[in-house]
Amino acid sequence: MSDSLHELRDLTRAFAAERDWQQFHTPKNLAMALSVEVAELAEHFQWLATGAPAELDERKREGVRHELADVLLYLVQLADKLDIDLHAAALEKLALNAAKYPAAQVRGDARKYDEY
Amino acid sequence: MSDSLHELRDLTRAFAAERDWQQFHTPKNLAMALSVEVAELAEHFQWLATGAPAELDERKREGVRHELADVLLYLVQLADKLDIDLHAAALEKLALNAAKYPAAQVRGDARKYDEY
Amino acid sequence: MSDSLHELRDLTRAFAAERDWQQFHTPKNLAMALSVEVAELAEHFQWLATGAPAELDERKREGVRHELADVLLYLVQLADKLDIDLHAAALEKLALNAAKYPAAQVRGDARKYDEY
Amino acid sequence: MSDSLHELRDLTRAFAAERDWQQFHTPKNLAMALSVEVAELAEHFQWLATGAPAELDERKREGVRHELADVLLYLVQLADKLDIDLHAAALEKLALNAAKYPAAQVRGDARKYDEY
Repeated sequence: MSDSLHELRDLTRAFAAERDWQQFHTPKNLAMALSVEVAELAEHFQWLATGAPAELDERKREGVRHELADVLLYLVQLADKLDIDLHAAALEKLALNAAKYPAAQVRGDARKYDEY
Repeated sequence: MSDSLHELRDLTRAFAAERDWQQFHTPKNLAMALSVEVAELAEHFQWLATGAPAELDERKREGVRHELADVLLYLVQLADKLDIDLHAAALEKLALNAAKYPAAQVRGDARKYDEY
Repeated sequence: MSDSLHELRDLTRAFAAERDWQQFHTPKNLAMALSVEVAELAEHFQWLATGAPAELDERKREGVRHELADVLLYLVQLADKLDIDLHAAALEKLALNAAKYPAAQVRGDARKYDEY
Repeated sequence: MSDSLHELRDLTRAFAAERDWQQFHTPKNLAMALSVEVAELAEHFQWLATGAPAELDERKREGVRHELADVLLYLVQLADKLDIDLHAAALEKLALNAAKYPAAQVRGDARKYDEY
């Protein structure tokens, strides 16, 4: 079975190549595009109380789903341009976070969370 | 082999549960945290010409790697809260994009790209 | 009395000129820097319930004050680069919004607000 | 002559009051709305080389102008909710920046700029 992140990397590569769009994909531009997509995602939640599923109607849920996808697709492309393995980076960051915020010490401590 | 996105979903669930931090993780709060992480990522590129690997020294590259990881980790957690399958959503969005911007028609057309 | 926005425009011009920093201030770079500052502002609110003054301690309030200032300073510089009069643009936008969302029709209508 | 920032504060107060929209305007929500507007502004620049005026056609320039206005309007409203004087905060921040980055020391030093 192919891994999902590898598969998306290959598919986004092919998508951009077929359209000759790699020319626009500098890391800086991709980082900016990623910010824009994240804002389009956040826009769905801005006036909601918590954004819990019960607050999202079908249309809004579909919009959120598409924006989540767009964020992932740009994230995969940016990591690819920089030759960074997203999965490995995430595992490493989780390990760093776990060492920095030991569960026994920070459990339920809102102050620690805010710092984190 | 476990899929990378499933694995990260399970690991972030455990990480938050062990620290009793799920209480902070409303979709709205996660969307906001995601925006903040994306901005920390973008910050590395803001004064660079293109952000090409040659413009990033080792320290900056490490910073970018960590921020990419943070973005993915919040993205996975937000999708999980909303019970959305990130991988399926991304494949679906790619298919929609492919239908909307047929390679033969948009190839290298900057105007089409801007619209996209 | 000098107007506050004009004064800030003149002061930021002088600040950048004295440091030879105008070279970094393309509109694109300033827009990106603005995004980053806004995220630093948002970060203060991300885990709070509403961000009401009572939820902000003195240190956090000072941080918010500085970030608000940074956002305004980059906004003024970006408008200046593009030769756009911020004050006139804001008055014009308010008039457009007032015409699009007449008070009598939208009063307290959350759906209208969400659209807006 | 009324100061532009005071005037916009008064106008946005009246605009929200007439529509009974203050209920949505928690500082957290306004910070999130501000992020979204900044992203809509940044979107205009994301695939451009530098965003210089010559790269913006009339339609795009008008879009940029409206987004700059939206950013200022939300910024003014957020500062108002927190009872922060935007103009005073900006002057204070400029003075802090001037002390931290003396012109004589940082002139044209890209490294210093990046840190800043």
